[in-house]
Amino acid sequence: MTITKAEVVKRLLQSDNVLIITHKSPDGDTLGSAFALYNALKSLQKKARVECSDIFPQRFQYLMEGYEHQEFKPDYIVAVDVAAIQLFGSNLEHYAQDVDLCIDHHPSNELYAKDTYLVAKASATCEMMYDIICDMNIAITKQIADCLYTGLATDTGCFRFSNTTEKTHRTAADLFGFGANYEWINRILFETKSKSRVRMEQLALSSIEYYYSDYVALIAITQKMIEEANADESELDGVASIPRTIEGVEIGITMREKAEGGYKISIRTASKVDASQLCALFNGGGHKRAAGCFIDSDLKTTKRLLLDAIQSIIKTIE
Amino acid sequence: MTITKAEVVKRLLQSDNVLIITHKSPDGDTLGSAFALYNALKSLQKKARVECSDIFPQRFQYLMEGYEHQEFKPDYIVAVDVAAIQLFGSNLEHYAQDVDLCIDHHPSNELYAKDTYLVAKASATCEMMYDIICDMNIAITKQIADCLYTGLATDTGCFRFSNTTEKTHRTAADLFGFGANYEWINRILFETKSKSRVRMEQLALSSIEYYYSDYVALIAITQKMIEEANADESELDGVASIPRTIEGVEIGITMREKAEGGYKISIRTASKVDASQLCALFNGGGHKRAAGCFIDSDLKTTKRLLLDAIQSIIKTIE
Repeated sequence: MTITKAEVVKRLLQSDNVLIITHKSPDGDTLGSAFALYNALKSLQKKARVECSDIFPQRFQYLMEGYEHQEFKPDYIVAVDVAAIQLFGSNLEHYAQDVDLCIDHHPSNELYAKDTYLVAKASATCEMMYDIICDMNIAITKQIADCLYTGLATDTGCFRFSNTTEKTHRTAADLFGFGANYEWINRILFETKSKSRVRMEQLALSSIEYYYSDYVALIAITQKMIEEANADESELDGVASIPRTIEGVEIGITMREKAEGGYKISIRTASKVDASQLCALFNGGGHKRAAGCFIDSDLKTTKRLLLDAIQSIIKTIE
Repeated sequence: MTITKAEVVKRLLQSDNVLIITHKSPDGDTLGSAFALYNALKSLQKKARVECSDIFPQRFQYLMEGYEHQEFKPDYIVAVDVAAIQLFGSNLEHYAQDVDLCIDHHPSNELYAKDTYLVAKASATCEMMYDIICDMNIAITKQIADCLYTGLATDTGCFRFSNTTEKTHRTAADLFGFGANYEWINRILFETKSKSRVRMEQLALSSIEYYYSDYVALIAITQKMIEEANADESELDGVASIPRTIEGVEIGITMREKAEGGYKISIRTASKVDASQLCALFNGGGHKRAAGCFIDSDLKTTKRLLLDAIQSIIKTIE
């Protein structure tokens, strides 16, 4: 059942022992909204703790400032930014059927919780959490402001992505007013790359190939490159967006060789080609501008399959 | 003489034939504030035109939508975002002594105009221009909102840099409300790189060297690389910030070989080393975190000179 913000506020104020759950492979928004809610509940002398199936990434440690992990039997379980049961992760999946409240902004939310508060047009769960905490009449401390700003900034690519709205900027302004340490947070989140990430980028860029008069740009990342850069999965994620950002390129392709063989394909398109339609040809899917699929073949064959498929799609557009 | 915003509003409302001047090598803030003011004055049936010593960059053409260049004898000359007379450029320097009003946010403004309205804590001149146009009681059209948003976004690196304030976000929120086409503008400004820029980045990254246990990262861009990438000056600018963004690096150095020989050096530091002090050793200067100098020598000697200087500075810190 979906409920209103007023009902969320009422239920949170009524609960005294709250378990807060984030999604697996935690990002700035799920962690930011979880620790903001933790601090808000603690300021009302309630018991609260945050759980995640995976280890918190090092760069988000500042969100945990002042956090004290406390064991207690929860009487209310809240999942934040968790769109589906499978996102609980193996260590927390036993909670999945018992979630009392889910607070989330993903349109795809599976409504698995007893109550769900969903605002699909919110740029981030943190944007919703700001309103909830304000309506609970809780003072926004610097620590809460840091948590909420982190979710806003990460989910919008620092106010660059199209999910940014008037409300996002107004919320950010309020959080600056409450003392969010945005200068430091922006530097950590948006201006720091690991040495292996930089090396990975260089290798990926050196593999760029252009096809069909630069209509297509293709990057192929092999296992050999990943080993050479000593890169992990999270360091590969940002690379997928590179080919599409090149001026004039309509279709950006990133191929990533899997350890067990075959290639994971990411397609990003600028404005004309439906990426999900293209990926559907290889049993993949996604959105119009970003989609993915898997092709279980070698480098040369995979490229040829993709380029042939694209050629036939270009023909239907022209 | 410095004047208040109320006086600026009064003077602009009193003027009927306004020449608006931008700085040379125009950026999003000088162009955004100029064309916002142009549109504001035109809505009051005044004559106005914008002049710049250099050609407007292609990617800012959208700011000129609806602009009609009109010749007339100006009775009021306004310079926007122009901090010093030398920034008028050779084609407009004849106006430098006759500027009636300068609207600017650079603390270094030389106060060369008859009247100057300076707000040093404003993130961009466009942030000031928004308040001025509002106080003139002029309706913010979509076109004005596009112009003002462009200046805000470019001068703050899309709300990432430390000059971003609460007011910046609040102004952006207002401009979204007035219909700014931010999704498209962000894509043009922040998610599009030329093919030569991408090639330049790859070549620059392939030259990275680390020294003193990764305390220093150094990129050396040679004329040969610039030719190979077919890159122009503006495509080289972004590269200077790369070495300092690498995790753990305190001193990021970018060396750029000049066509006439020698190396232009950009130094960025994270938090401990004073970049301007380091550059002063080579007759250069700048700020604590970003400075530059020129070393008239070959690649090997230039590197050695810089690294020796850094070694002695590191010793004084420890």
